[in-house]
Amino acid sequence: MDYNQPTKNFQKEVAEQCIRYLSIDGVIFGFHQNQLNVLLLRWKGTNEWCLPGGFIRKTESVDEAAERVMQERTGLNELFLQQFHVFGAVVRYDQDAVWRKINLNVDADSWSERTISIGYYALVEHSKVVPTPDFLTEECRWWPLDEVPGLLFDHNHIIEVATRALRRQLNDQPISHLLPESFTIPELQRLHETILGHPLDARNFYKKMMASGTLERLTERRAGTPHKAPYLYRFTRSESQA
Amino acid sequence: MDYNQPTKNFQKEVAEQCIRYLSIDGVIFGFHQNQLNVLLLRWKGTNEWCLPGGFIRKTESVDEAAERVMQERTGLNELFLQQFHVFGAVVRYDQDAVWRKINLNVDADSWSERTISIGYYALVEHSKVVPTPDFLTEECRWWPLDEVPGLLFDHNHIIEVATRALRRQLNDQPISHLLPESFTIPELQRLHETILGHPLDARNFYKKMMASGTLERLTERRAGTPHKAPYLYRFTRSESQA
Repeated sequence: MDYNQPTKNFQKEVAEQCIRYLSIDGVIFGFHQNQLNVLLLRWKGTNEWCLPGGFIRKTESVDEAAERVMQERTGLNELFLQQFHVFGAVVRYDQDAVWRKINLNVDADSWSERTISIGYYALVEHSKVVPTPDFLTEECRWWPLDEVPGLLFDHNHIIEVATRALRRQLNDQPISHLLPESFTIPELQRLHETILGHPLDARNFYKKMMASGTLERLTERRAGTPHKAPYLYRFTRSESQA
Repeated sequence: MDYNQPTKNFQKEVAEQCIRYLSIDGVIFGFHQNQLNVLLLRWKGTNEWCLPGGFIRKTESVDEAAERVMQERTGLNELFLQQFHVFGAVVRYDQDAVWRKINLNVDADSWSERTISIGYYALVEHSKVVPTPDFLTEECRWWPLDEVPGLLFDHNHIIEVATRALRRQLNDQPISHLLPESFTIPELQRLHETILGHPLDARNFYKKMMASGTLERLTERRAGTPHKAPYLYRFTRSESQA
């Protein structure tokens, strides 16, 4: 498929309206069937995948640019976003090799010779997302974190750094955004275990969560479970971010 | 003092060699006499203070730019640096008001209409630093964190965000960089208390530190103390960063 005329226009538009040398990359995490997933895009006419991303308009803040990109790819009006790292190496990946893989003619006049990318991760409720490709891509879908293929650019590295950041920030981040409004303690434990990558002791986990003062027990219980129906909980407050 | 000719040359140089729209700001933390200090610069011919900062050359990575700036201001060849936040609002501060305060004629052709700043903090051993002004400033010195005056740009806000990040990362960061090679447990506790802003229980702190597996007790003890000489410790490994 020839998509080079629209991409030429796109490159010109970016060069005029956006901040040269800078981009946004987004690692959108969802939690489903005890797996952490990330949202990936497949480039038109190829089998090459990458993260959602975009550029920062001169008239918008960096956070607004990130929100715009993530909202467009998820269909969500509100989502929890966290800056986690700036990828600022002079050579982040082999540009020519990437352009060849996706059959892209890059206009050297309007395109910058390097791109510094500001990484954001988003925590979203899996079931609410409507994965939506952009005009350069033809597929947008969830991939389990441990099955992510070799990606374009340095996007595997970006996912790795995002996952480490999420793991480190597990106790101060509003991971409630990854869960439906109400959930059981074992469900919350699965989420923690999935992010950390190792099992946790159920009794200690329960104690720690109760001591945190962030959970409220509801009067309803989870229906349709084979054993005694477990209580449902919800978070009492949305935690603040930096 | 007229420093406008050199600053004109500087602006031209930055416009040619550096990445437009982007800057680095550095919050350099030192720990001295149970106080957390930050390194500030005073602009030539004024009583206006700000953080050390600079621009990213097209040929260097963002990390290299940050290292260069921090090394120049501290005289240290190696220092522990951590990216903590990108300040990307469209209007971060009143530019004209800042230029007036420091009597700077800004060349609108070579200067960008907004600047996105990548914040780094550095953890340094206070006694090893040789505070060194740059060519725009005439004084560089430590300020206790709780006595920092109203600063130029949005630098009070940047310090606030850096301090929150340091506090949050207290347990995974190599805060060993803020201490001399060997130290007593009470000295380490003072550092934690200073960063957190509240006292800690000595017995629990001791237990937690011993359980962390990061400390090694030396055979020497701290000399010159009025009571029984306490043991000296050091960190056994340098912790990794993202």
